[in-house]
Amino acid sequence: MGESVTAFAPASIGNVGVGFDMLGLALDGVGDHVIARRKDQPGISVSEVLGLDGAPHPYLSKDPEHNTASIAVKALWNDYGDDHGVDLRIHKGVPLQSGMGSSAASAVAATFAVNQLLGTPLPTPNLLPYALAGEQYASGGLHADNVAPSLLGGMIYCPKVLLPETVRMPVPKGVSAVLIHPELQVNTAHARRKLAKAYSMEQWLEQQAYFGGFLAACAASDLELIRKTLKDVIVEPQRASAVSCFAAVKDAAVRGGALGCSLSGSGPSIFALTESGKAGNLATAMEQACRSLGIDCQSWVSSLDAPGAHLEA
Amino acid sequence: MGESVTAFAPASIGNVGVGFDMLGLALDGVGDHVIARRKDQPGISVSEVLGLDGAPHPYLSKDPEHNTASIAVKALWNDYGDDHGVDLRIHKGVPLQSGMGSSAASAVAATFAVNQLLGTPLPTPNLLPYALAGEQYASGGLHADNVAPSLLGGMIYCPKVLLPETVRMPVPKGVSAVLIHPELQVNTAHARRKLAKAYSMEQWLEQQAYFGGFLAACAASDLELIRKTLKDVIVEPQRASAVSCFAAVKDAAVRGGALGCSLSGSGPSIFALTESGKAGNLATAMEQACRSLGIDCQSWVSSLDAPGAHLEA
Repeated sequence: MGESVTAFAPASIGNVGVGFDMLGLALDGVGDHVIARRKDQPGISVSEVLGLDGAPHPYLSKDPEHNTASIAVKALWNDYGDDHGVDLRIHKGVPLQSGMGSSAASAVAATFAVNQLLGTPLPTPNLLPYALAGEQYASGGLHADNVAPSLLGGMIYCPKVLLPETVRMPVPKGVSAVLIHPELQVNTAHARRKLAKAYSMEQWLEQQAYFGGFLAACAASDLELIRKTLKDVIVEPQRASAVSCFAAVKDAAVRGGALGCSLSGSGPSIFALTESGKAGNLATAMEQACRSLGIDCQSWVSSLDAPGAHLEA
Repeated sequence: MGESVTAFAPASIGNVGVGFDMLGLALDGVGDHVIARRKDQPGISVSEVLGLDGAPHPYLSKDPEHNTASIAVKALWNDYGDDHGVDLRIHKGVPLQSGMGSSAASAVAATFAVNQLLGTPLPTPNLLPYALAGEQYASGGLHADNVAPSLLGGMIYCPKVLLPETVRMPVPKGVSAVLIHPELQVNTAHARRKLAKAYSMEQWLEQQAYFGGFLAACAASDLELIRKTLKDVIVEPQRASAVSCFAAVKDAAVRGGALGCSLSGSGPSIFALTESGKAGNLATAMEQACRSLGIDCQSWVSSLDAPGAHLEA
């Protein structure tokens, strides 16, 4: 058996409601583990993909050409690998098609682990293009709003026009994220294809106005300005109906004092930002609203400066 | 003769290239003066409007129903005035239809002066809706990107959805603005009507990406990120052809090392941001490019934290 390392990469909130395709937030305490082990044979293999229940995953492929983690690693290995190979074991902690950046977490954890195995030829931020290559296979587009926060932690600004550069954004003090994952599935690529292609100037400017205000509010820890600006008036209205519990959960969040609430990525997960002291109660209220519709769910409370990918013992 | 006060309000750069309709920057050393004098007769009058040459202005009306300054003052007077009246004398320092917020400067200076005359019933930021009422008459829409910086100074975030609230944005250290005013005129309302009504998602997201990056870059004084993000890929391409010298002046600015260059408001004025040490040479280069096309021009160099409206002795 060759040398091996285990890396963890967190789940993440894509878009953060207000920043479609360009803003992402890492989550505390939920993510994927990837164990990367050197092997004598050349090439990348995937010997194990375990689901949340510890059993072999029913859907995710072990074919290295069809797995987001191995696709990411293959790109890295082509540039920095050697004549030998690497085997990956993927232990999913992030539910599939949940809107929590599941494919991104696997791709990030795998590239992070393999970079370590190779003696760290690249500083962490430079792993982004490799992890993106894997994530692109799953999502069908070049969107870094899950990969970037999963890799780097915290809240990351990562629009396509700046890639591979990203910008760490200041996060407001005393604010936490609540994420609830209803037991529903949404196909990201399908959700994207359904979005309208054209928007009026008024729509564009309104959304951009909230976006700029949210960034300013976070930098200034201005909670009332977060409340006014954490809004998605373009994408959320087009996607909300695909998540049957969305209206009820958002209503519970708003009544519970959330600063804002929207879909995480393309859903079905729903996130809220809230004053940290209210986070526990808010999670309970959002879960109850979901369960009252007969939909099981799970929730997490996270700081806004959750760590990104890192090694595990 | 009744009591009188004189107020100054600066010209401003609307949009700041990257933030159409929502970002504005005050300019140093160029603006309008308004002398407000109490009179016994009720109502608002305008007894004098002088142009840049000190002679009666050939176009601006002294009819209080058709002058941006008196319209602004009338709204303020209705809320806080008394049984007497006020007369305004307007000394223009900002050329008309220049893209430098000429009507905003008059409306702001007038409301600031009259607020003083009334014993300052309102703190300065609360004058915004009154000055906007005047500016709206001139521009045909509710856009605060000239009024807000003229009133408050510095760089102000002022999208419609947040009004009357505005947000003072941090400005980068060591950066100055150069503004050149070619002797051309652009009608703001007409320029706006010509803009396309619909945009693709890609266009919207690209512009929003630059916008968010620019705000982050300013907050971090990251000059290279300003260079990457101070771009208007939607409005500038639609308006540039109306300003015959734009391409030549922008080219001179870019070759002169500017961090970015675009139209100020709807033009014809053109602004650039630059490292402060290069500002003088950049202004000269932009002026030369303009004059080489046979178009006379004037330029100003400004800090990014120019003062807003204030009293003058």
